[in-house]
Amino acid sequence: MMMRSVFSNISPLDHRYSISEQDVFDALVPYLSEDAALRACAQAEIALVKAHLSLRKRRTPQLDAALNSSLERFKPEAVYAEEEKTRHSMRALVNVLKTLVPPEAAPLVHLGATSADILDSALAWRIKEASSTVVMPLLRRLEALLCDITEREAATPQVGRTHGQHAVPITVGFAFAGYTARLGKSILELEQRICALKGKLSGAVGAYNATSMITPDPEGLEQAYLAELGLEPSEYSTQLVEPEYLLRLLLEMTTAFGIIANLADDLRNLQRSEIGELKEGFDDAQVGSSTMPQKRNPWNSEHVKSLWKAYMPRVTTFFLDQISEHQRDLTNSASQRFVAEYITGFACAARRMILIVEGLSFNRERLRANLAGGSIEGGILAEPAYILLAESGVNDAHEVVRRVTLRAEEQHLSFAQALSEEQEALAAIEQTMRRLNLLSSDECALDFFQKPERYQGRAVEKARAMARKYRAKAPK
Amino acid sequence: MMMRSVFSNISPLDHRYSISEQDVFDALVPYLSEDAALRACAQAEIALVKAHLSLRKRRTPQLDAALNSSLERFKPEAVYAEEEKTRHSMRALVNVLKTLVPPEAAPLVHLGATSADILDSALAWRIKEASSTVVMPLLRRLEALLCDITEREAATPQVGRTHGQHAVPITVGFAFAGYTARLGKSILELEQRICALKGKLSGAVGAYNATSMITPDPEGLEQAYLAELGLEPSEYSTQLVEPEYLLRLLLEMTTAFGIIANLADDLRNLQRSEIGELKEGFDDAQVGSSTMPQKRNPWNSEHVKSLWKAYMPRVTTFFLDQISEHQRDLTNSASQRFVAEYITGFACAARRMILIVEGLSFNRERLRANLAGGSIEGGILAEPAYILLAESGVNDAHEVVRRVTLRAEEQHLSFAQALSEEQEALAAIEQTMRRLNLLSSDECALDFFQKPERYQGRAVEKARAMARKYRAKAPK
Amino acid sequence: MMMRSVFSNISPLDHRYSISEQDVFDALVPYLSEDAALRACAQAEIALVKAHLSLRKRRTPQLDAALNSSLERFKPEAVYAEEEKTRHSMRALVNVLKTLVPPEAAPLVHLGATSADILDSALAWRIKEASSTVVMPLLRRLEALLCDITEREAATPQVGRTHGQHAVPITVGFAFAGYTARLGKSILELEQRICALKGKLSGAVGAYNATSMITPDPEGLEQAYLAELGLEPSEYSTQLVEPEYLLRLLLEMTTAFGIIANLADDLRNLQRSEIGELKEGFDDAQVGSSTMPQKRNPWNSEHVKSLWKAYMPRVTTFFLDQISEHQRDLTNSASQRFVAEYITGFACAARRMILIVEGLSFNRERLRANLAGGSIEGGILAEPAYILLAESGVNDAHEVVRRVTLRAEEQHLSFAQALSEEQEALAAIEQTMRRLNLLSSDECALDFFQKPERYQGRAVEKARAMARKYRAKAPK
Amino acid sequence: MMMRSVFSNISPLDHRYSISEQDVFDALVPYLSEDAALRACAQAEIALVKAHLSLRKRRTPQLDAALNSSLERFKPEAVYAEEEKTRHSMRALVNVLKTLVPPEAAPLVHLGATSADILDSALAWRIKEASSTVVMPLLRRLEALLCDITEREAATPQVGRTHGQHAVPITVGFAFAGYTARLGKSILELEQRICALKGKLSGAVGAYNATSMITPDPEGLEQAYLAELGLEPSEYSTQLVEPEYLLRLLLEMTTAFGIIANLADDLRNLQRSEIGELKEGFDDAQVGSSTMPQKRNPWNSEHVKSLWKAYMPRVTTFFLDQISEHQRDLTNSASQRFVAEYITGFACAARRMILIVEGLSFNRERLRANLAGGSIEGGILAEPAYILLAESGVNDAHEVVRRVTLRAEEQHLSFAQALSEEQEALAAIEQTMRRLNLLSSDECALDFFQKPERYQGRAVEKARAMARKYRAKAPK
Repeated sequence: MMMRSVFSNISPLDHRYSISEQDVFDALVPYLSEDAALRACAQAEIALVKAHLSLRKRRTPQLDAALNSSLERFKPEAVYAEEEKTRHSMRALVNVLKTLVPPEAAPLVHLGATSADILDSALAWRIKEASSTVVMPLLRRLEALLCDITEREAATPQVGRTHGQHAVPITVGFAFAGYTARLGKSILELEQRICALKGKLSGAVGAYNATSMITPDPEGLEQAYLAELGLEPSEYSTQLVEPEYLLRLLLEMTTAFGIIANLADDLRNLQRSEIGELKEGFDDAQVGSSTMPQKRNPWNSEHVKSLWKAYMPRVTTFFLDQISEHQRDLTNSASQRFVAEYITGFACAARRMILIVEGLSFNRERLRANLAGGSIEGGILAEPAYILLAESGVNDAHEVVRRVTLRAEEQHLSFAQALSEEQEALAAIEQTMRRLNLLSSDECALDFFQKPERYQGRAVEKARAMARKYRAKAPK
Repeated sequence: MMMRSVFSNISPLDHRYSISEQDVFDALVPYLSEDAALRACAQAEIALVKAHLSLRKRRTPQLDAALNSSLERFKPEAVYAEEEKTRHSMRALVNVLKTLVPPEAAPLVHLGATSADILDSALAWRIKEASSTVVMPLLRRLEALLCDITEREAATPQVGRTHGQHAVPITVGFAFAGYTARLGKSILELEQRICALKGKLSGAVGAYNATSMITPDPEGLEQAYLAELGLEPSEYSTQLVEPEYLLRLLLEMTTAFGIIANLADDLRNLQRSEIGELKEGFDDAQVGSSTMPQKRNPWNSEHVKSLWKAYMPRVTTFFLDQISEHQRDLTNSASQRFVAEYITGFACAARRMILIVEGLSFNRERLRANLAGGSIEGGILAEPAYILLAESGVNDAHEVVRRVTLRAEEQHLSFAQALSEEQEALAAIEQTMRRLNLLSSDECALDFFQKPERYQGRAVEKARAMARKYRAKAPK
Repeated sequence: MMMRSVFSNISPLDHRYSISEQDVFDALVPYLSEDAALRACAQAEIALVKAHLSLRKRRTPQLDAALNSSLERFKPEAVYAEEEKTRHSMRALVNVLKTLVPPEAAPLVHLGATSADILDSALAWRIKEASSTVVMPLLRRLEALLCDITEREAATPQVGRTHGQHAVPITVGFAFAGYTARLGKSILELEQRICALKGKLSGAVGAYNATSMITPDPEGLEQAYLAELGLEPSEYSTQLVEPEYLLRLLLEMTTAFGIIANLADDLRNLQRSEIGELKEGFDDAQVGSSTMPQKRNPWNSEHVKSLWKAYMPRVTTFFLDQISEHQRDLTNSASQRFVAEYITGFACAARRMILIVEGLSFNRERLRANLAGGSIEGGILAEPAYILLAESGVNDAHEVVRRVTLRAEEQHLSFAQALSEEQEALAAIEQTMRRLNLLSSDECALDFFQKPERYQGRAVEKARAMARKYRAKAPK
Repeated sequence: MMMRSVFSNISPLDHRYSISEQDVFDALVPYLSEDAALRACAQAEIALVKAHLSLRKRRTPQLDAALNSSLERFKPEAVYAEEEKTRHSMRALVNVLKTLVPPEAAPLVHLGATSADILDSALAWRIKEASSTVVMPLLRRLEALLCDITEREAATPQVGRTHGQHAVPITVGFAFAGYTARLGKSILELEQRICALKGKLSGAVGAYNATSMITPDPEGLEQAYLAELGLEPSEYSTQLVEPEYLLRLLLEMTTAFGIIANLADDLRNLQRSEIGELKEGFDDAQVGSSTMPQKRNPWNSEHVKSLWKAYMPRVTTFFLDQISEHQRDLTNSASQRFVAEYITGFACAARRMILIVEGLSFNRERLRANLAGGSIEGGILAEPAYILLAESGVNDAHEVVRRVTLRAEEQHLSFAQALSEEQEALAAIEQTMRRLNLLSSDECALDFFQKPERYQGRAVEKARAMARKYRAKAPK
């Protein structure tokens, strides 16, 4: 076995992130490493031998056991040694396997198959397993954590922001509910796309030329072979499985990646010095900067966003690989191997986001202060003033209120103060509020305009509904 | 109305392709032009007024008629004139509409809405309509044409190619069946994604702050509003509809675009001078080259591939637009407008591919010659020789046959000739063929190895099955 | 002339942005529209006729005048009409021109040229002109404005930010100096790349086959032809000019675009409600939000960033077009046409950034408050405390000061207060400051730690140096 | 030292390609692995200590030796162990180094530096070294091989192809000359870009805040520090070196990558069964397909193209990383690490292309046959017929000759035969040829039209000129 120092690797996945996200890396190695790739091919070859034996009514428990045992004795290194001679990795693997299986099974190894029948099916199996046993559990755990915060903070007031400007109030849980809903739906899509991955045993050009020589029902043989791997056949194939099954899965992963990166961006920004509503977990001994001792950088959120920047553009490769001339042109020979990197990068980002969300703390004082403050104190209540004035029948209500905000700004008044000087408008607003039962009997309209947290619409209910729905859909 | 010479436009869509694909362009203008964008917003505003009237039990057929009439009198140019003052396009549109609707409806215009409630809903409506009334019919027509060729040429022998090398035989229909199956599935996906587009009326930050002032059931008001546009609400929204509904549609369009580009590549290559199996339609008076009078270039296939090169990379923009800070950051203000370009570019490519497929002619002589020829005549039957030899129990059958092909090449023999000299192997092959009923009683094995077209597996049946299935799924 | 309402166009460049950036659009139409494309080809054809006449010693001022006149009478529409017949746009143009030039010149039209000799040369000419007469002046004007702010605000204190966190002080001019330096260098690169654009007259495959029949010095004829257009020949060509000349120009434009987008991002963020150090210009009558009357959104900065998101990904198309099979495969037939869109989009972004920078105002109060404030008041001076302590020889100075910042945070002290309690460290710092002449005789160390603006390093000098250098290099 | 089986890595670079291109991988590990990254940072820290010592006039040969020795004792693993505590990799490295250097130097470690002063400078050093000692020698070797073929095959006739169609003749050397010229120029660009990489020592926000406390000439200290690493300072810096130095190098690498990928595509296509003009080297024992024994696939060319598909799209990441908010936002923390992957992938592609070009063999028979053949035998001489006819003054010469080619095609004549029947045209052509000295006295025009290889323009001279020029510019 060829050993190498982890620090002598070149891909960050194989050195730094294999250490910082060791659990993810170790969990993916059985599916996405070169060792895994070769073992999965061997496994597919054995599945094919079994299908051949069944077809010939020669399959026995003893032979099955012997075949399984040959799989255990299979060593990926032997394939590389043989490949030195054949210069063809699949033929090398076949040659190696023929020496491991019982002699009566040897002529059946790879019989009727083209390399891609093994490779594409093994790839589908590997990605299906890596996705369903590693990636999806990470996403479901993240979703569960998002549901928790969404529900727990459903009623915590926060200022809503558009264009980076204070807009109108929301709640913390409502903001998280967006990620709960978006990631929740993406999880459901991913589950479908994973199940839809397909294999093949249709030969060199997809027309079952070779297997048609052996059996009058080559499609039956294909099904038997793939069933051993828990797969179904591609509806149509050339030398390759139709590319869209895998493409759509990778696109949905990129979609989920974007949702997580969006969350990372929000968390980064909410940790700005001037905003300070959130904090990533930070150990007592941890250093924020090598030279500025006071720093607490949102480096995990930055890391997640940065992984997205590294991986998202690779969708272009997936689209380039969708196109293959005639029955195949093999210009995906190298590029498709990098799908393993992509899934690992995405899993690392999901893992890191779990860590962030688990360690997140809220600065309730800053949440309150930001909601109250803004460039015009209480200016975020200009909207309800305009709505209520319009509702009272004033046609240019927006313009009336816009001028109130301008005056408030010029004269350094709070919005409520400036509004109080517009007696006619204020009276119309108060009347409307009473009509709509928006004030209790002991309140006047100005009371409302001093409490931004009252203007939160359906934020609380929406947050709770999303948490409820997706906790049910994506149980931990 | 500001008029301009078509030749003074800068985007090829608005000059050259608006002429060469005039039917597509004209069909898309009502949904994807600036005129359409503003009209759709006006339509959404009127839908909102109607929803408000219903809520207040003030809706009447007379008012509906008056509102519809105001929509007819709406002029996009007026919005631009007003925007000079407001510097805000939606407020400008609102101001214009208020002058057109009946006075009692004026205060209800835009009431409770933020710009994005109108813009995002109108955009969803426009894309839904453009897709379902223009794009999908083009794709369905292309699919029907592919079904036709798939079925018609199901039994026309052709050499299969991998790595640009002759592999084993297929049929012309079988090769087209791949596109039939792939595009067919993409059409089904697209239909779902189009229906899944959503609108919203949840206000500035998505929490129904404004509409909660007006009604205790703001989600009911949202549904009523969107129902007027044939839409449903986004499950959750910030200032924006969740981005993934549109993103997934655009990704599937790009997927379909890739399938069409793949077909274009195949057609280009099959028109190479040395291959010559196909030809695009070519008029008698048509010029292939300005300087080489003999040229017949596959320029339509090149054009389709080129459009894909121009548009596919824009998926990166879609992924960048998926991320918006907090309740929205507006850095999609310009970029999202280019979705109109994307859909138009895709529709142009589909239209051109229809033209190509309609005009395609097959050179049957070249099809036959290429199948017979190849670098070693009949070498494409090396595979069945190997398979049959392996089936007979010879363990190194691949190596035996590989050496036959090397000898054939060195000695300029046909594969059948070279094989005939390997008497032992040939006998084993013949015996196996008899066992498997692959030869009629008056044939010997060598007969088979002189007729490549017999080695076509399930190509014919597969082609017919795909044509049948997708003709049923995607009727013209 | 085929006229169309501007609002019926589909590309935002041809409707919305052709109005909002009308000066840019109008300036680019003579180079980047379809009209321009055809006229430039006609101009190139006439240049070729002149080169042929020179070669044959038949060139006269009268013939030149007649040829120039035919160019004036040339109508792009006529080419489209002729193309209906030829289905080949260049042959159509040639046919049209032959009817316009003096009869004795007609056989010389296009003689020895392949379409790409005309198209590629005309394209180089158009892009060179559009770049040097429209794009570069915009960039130089932006650069001059950046120089102005860099110099004017060279000494205006501002808090420096890393990770969105307060780091150590800078000045406003220093922050702008970065853009001055980066854009300044990009302008110099662009100037080189524009000059390096090349043309060709080497025929169908680049080997001067056709022109070698006519003259023993076909490379001389090529030079004479291109000199008429102010161009030099591509060092080597196939049917096409080497793709890298244009590619490198477009990559550098994208680089400059990234610099401008980076500036837009900074401006967006500095306009956040909680930061508020800057403001884009805002008219009195302008509306910030259709529903929130108080809003002042940084919509121009958002627009610039959004244009970058729309256009940057198109570099992938440029790289795809770099590859053309053999002597050319024409899969750039459509995609290369979109270069016109790209340059226009970039010019629009530059134009908008000029508008932003011209209208920018600074909130000096917020600049001061943000510098003083932060999560620990004065915490941004933790760095000099650590540096001075280390300079005094304390090996774990960073850890000592880190603990001071933690205590300050826990006990709600200013950093200076917390530091004053670390008497030993403070004494060491004071001693070092005296040694290094960092304090005047009447100051103590704590005075320094209460004035963040003193800790600004070489910010002022650096800002002034950059403004000086690039004002000299890129005069208005 | 943490060891791992090479087969347990996930990136293909770290398993498969580290074996198949072992020489490239081993040569890059000292610059691009994690081990290299940490060692380069340690080296930069030591450079800083030396600069500090020089500034203080305390530098001695003994101290230098001790510092160099500490560098030798430095173990990357120790940093990872320390990082468990600090959670900050650079602070961890500083802590480790402080224990290794002589005690009097310990307080000077990292003094005045921010992490990025070390990281960015070390990165510039690493990329400079990896590029100039590994990548450039590979490219220069490839260029030398291209010069060889260009010159050796300068006069070997080949059919030129546009649109995949036979166009007019070239020579093999002429076709390669394009790659010689394009790669040659890219090499010159790369050399400049490599030299232009910069470092920095300007502190946390680029304003020399910290070093200004220590010395009145912080820019002098920066120069002294960087000089130890063979670098110059970035003209301006924030926390980071200006991003464009590295960006432009990576863009030019991508440009060179595209040139190599273009060559790969040409080689792939020229190996098609029907074309067969070239062959990649193929061992006797090598297997082309696991099931089709006759196959000789152009798998190395496919591999190079596939690597390009995997890596080219990553330029989008480079452009995303160009943008960093304010004085830095750290969202390049992960993504920039992947630059190491990019350079390695590019180097692997260059290495493989060297292998291909070294092993390339030409099928001279097929070259001749393809030049002679085509859909109309000799049809590639339609161009000179048209040119000569036009030169004789016939205005519609193109149309006349186009009709000849149509007739030749319909009647299965060679072009020369069909032309011989157009007596008037042929006479005009012959007369023109005599006038232009294109025929020797004993030849008639039809002789010319039967020898396509005579119509090769300046192909031979151009090929030789390119070989000569670039052999001189890029010596082996």
